[in-house]
Amino acid sequence: MCGATEQGHARNNGAATNLSSDTLVNLDHGDPMIFETYWRNMGDKCTVMIPGYQSLSYFADTENLCWFLEPKLEESIKNLHKVVGNAVVDDHYIVVGTGSSQLIQAALYALAPPDQPKPASIVCAAPYYSCYKEMAEFLRSGLYKWEGDAHTFDKDGPYIEMVTSPNNPDGVCREAVVKKDGGKLVHDLAYYWPQYTPITAPADYDIMLFTVSKCTGHAGSRIGWALVKDKEVAQKMVTFMTISTIGVSKESQQRAAKILEVISNGCKDPKSSNGITDNFFLYGQSILSKRWDKLRNTLKHSQVFSLAKYPIKYCHFTQDFSEAHPAFAWIKAKDSIDDCEKLFRGHKVLTRSGRRFGSDPKYVRVSMVSKEEDFQLFITRLSSIN
Amino acid sequence: MCGATEQGHARNNGAATNLSSDTLVNLDHGDPMIFETYWRNMGDKCTVMIPGYQSLSYFADTENLCWFLEPKLEESIKNLHKVVGNAVVDDHYIVVGTGSSQLIQAALYALAPPDQPKPASIVCAAPYYSCYKEMAEFLRSGLYKWEGDAHTFDKDGPYIEMVTSPNNPDGVCREAVVKKDGGKLVHDLAYYWPQYTPITAPADYDIMLFTVSKCTGHAGSRIGWALVKDKEVAQKMVTFMTISTIGVSKESQQRAAKILEVISNGCKDPKSSNGITDNFFLYGQSILSKRWDKLRNTLKHSQVFSLAKYPIKYCHFTQDFSEAHPAFAWIKAKDSIDDCEKLFRGHKVLTRSGRRFGSDPKYVRVSMVSKEEDFQLFITRLSSIN
Repeated sequence: MCGATEQGHARNNGAATNLSSDTLVNLDHGDPMIFETYWRNMGDKCTVMIPGYQSLSYFADTENLCWFLEPKLEESIKNLHKVVGNAVVDDHYIVVGTGSSQLIQAALYALAPPDQPKPASIVCAAPYYSCYKEMAEFLRSGLYKWEGDAHTFDKDGPYIEMVTSPNNPDGVCREAVVKKDGGKLVHDLAYYWPQYTPITAPADYDIMLFTVSKCTGHAGSRIGWALVKDKEVAQKMVTFMTISTIGVSKESQQRAAKILEVISNGCKDPKSSNGITDNFFLYGQSILSKRWDKLRNTLKHSQVFSLAKYPIKYCHFTQDFSEAHPAFAWIKAKDSIDDCEKLFRGHKVLTRSGRRFGSDPKYVRVSMVSKEEDFQLFITRLSSIN
Repeated sequence: MCGATEQGHARNNGAATNLSSDTLVNLDHGDPMIFETYWRNMGDKCTVMIPGYQSLSYFADTENLCWFLEPKLEESIKNLHKVVGNAVVDDHYIVVGTGSSQLIQAALYALAPPDQPKPASIVCAAPYYSCYKEMAEFLRSGLYKWEGDAHTFDKDGPYIEMVTSPNNPDGVCREAVVKKDGGKLVHDLAYYWPQYTPITAPADYDIMLFTVSKCTGHAGSRIGWALVKDKEVAQKMVTFMTISTIGVSKESQQRAAKILEVISNGCKDPKSSNGITDNFFLYGQSILSKRWDKLRNTLKHSQVFSLAKYPIKYCHFTQDFSEAHPAFAWIKAKDSIDDCEKLFRGHKVLTRSGRRFGSDPKYVRVSMVSKEEDFQLFITRLSSIN
């Protein structure tokens, strides 16, 4: 999403309705409009009403370490993780953030030793989420320094490794790679939800980050949360949030609490034979699976592009075997094509170049969670390049 | 507000109802609960309803430089400034932020030259808002460096001066003091609203910051806005917001849009003889004026504390002469008392020491915008020290 402003004037958000051959399709960012139909079908079930006298105070719960966290959101988060089985919550503090972006920065602030002469190194295995680099560099902090690909990292001193699993951009499930003394880990689990990947076990790490943007598709709410084992680290993250924005929107928290509650309740709804279900994750998996089938079919005999396969795993949530259906496709162009992003741009499809992820420009990342009409147009154009 | 976590367990937010002599009254932060009664009396006029399918996208308006700004909020902001007459909006870009705190940091990022060997100096005339220092220092940015009191600033090179008017903590209307070449100004006008101070003219500066926390009392919404003259600066502030939090809560923006609209409409309502009015600013002025009268009466013959006077000015909004009724009282203890904050703490009143504002610990800042019961308890305890 960090590139949003550069290409902000490309079509997105469904404002245009006539998609002509001239329409620029913006699949550069992961705007999760794919779930809009589901939410429209839910009607008033998730509607929140906020009267003018509510949430005047900065404070949500002064007894909580995270004093700006709405108690109902905390409850909904814990409940959802238990229902889905994707993370251990009971011995973790919850810190809410303005999206998980802010929590990534809060984690860097909390983990970087304040008393070192040199900044802590920040690393992530390439291909890595392009925004990590931007977040780590934009303020030229003396606390931490972006050092790029974790695979080639060989510096001494404290370091923080971002572990994105499933990974953005390529959907692969990951573990830490550096494994040296003095290292701290931040697990970015934004995509560890059943619609994207099989839930193989509840994650249980020191810092785990999630966001409603990817969990439910409510990117406009800017709500993320961190599950944090260590009290002192959680407290430092809260300090970051206090100085940075004096907490997090109460309205968004209240709405997220409601939406997560509705989703948890819907998880009791089994997959129905006609494919209509209140179970959000089964719905999400079904629609993403159809898109991935369409993409793989389109590229089956391609002479230009290739896609990696994902292993079939048992998902404890769906109680079934399946492969991953990531939120992004990580497409590789054949050897004779140097710049895959440029090729797509020539066909009026905006993608994000592999270069931005510390990888080869033969790759592009393409959003699989756009509006249906954008996805269809992408498939049509892709067929014409093939 | 930056000190919130330190004293988070003190009573606030009206959770407790029995105020015994043991109750700690927290007037350290400026939690604007004073306006709660007004908002309760407004009933459903400001209620917003947000269905589950709304605001899924990161984007609000891709044609706008500030692509995450809700068009209705932009309209409400412009309209309110025109109705109140406190700022020129027509030739300014609007950038929305997660409270004005985030916009202060966005402004520092946008104004600090990126190509200088040394960081730009950040200054503000003492006594200065205590959070500026924390914001400028917490990430040890190489772009800018906190240099403290603008009155004693004598370094060469680029600098950014924060001009807070009316000032937090002391309520004084201010202008820039450094006035050297290469300086950039950020006008923090959070308190430039008729309930706090006479509106003498529409402000027209390069960067002006406002926040609903202080304008309407909706601190929990975390909505601030910047009026920015220069397009490139506005664009850099948007870049900061994009990297920092990928925009701002849509729910809070929608609610703020509604609330500001209702306030603008209420401004057509004249002051009624019984003191009940839909005009929020007249209501606010009236209730603050009563508190200030009570405080001044309590300290009239005090041998321990003193308060500065504010000049009487003509307010173009109320069309009347009045003095200021700031959101904070800046109380000075007599010479024999070294630590005024400690004295109040001994009487179970939490205040913020002058030290935190780059000033003398003989001073404390005391919130005047707390809940009524807290204010009453403060006056009772103050009388007992007097």
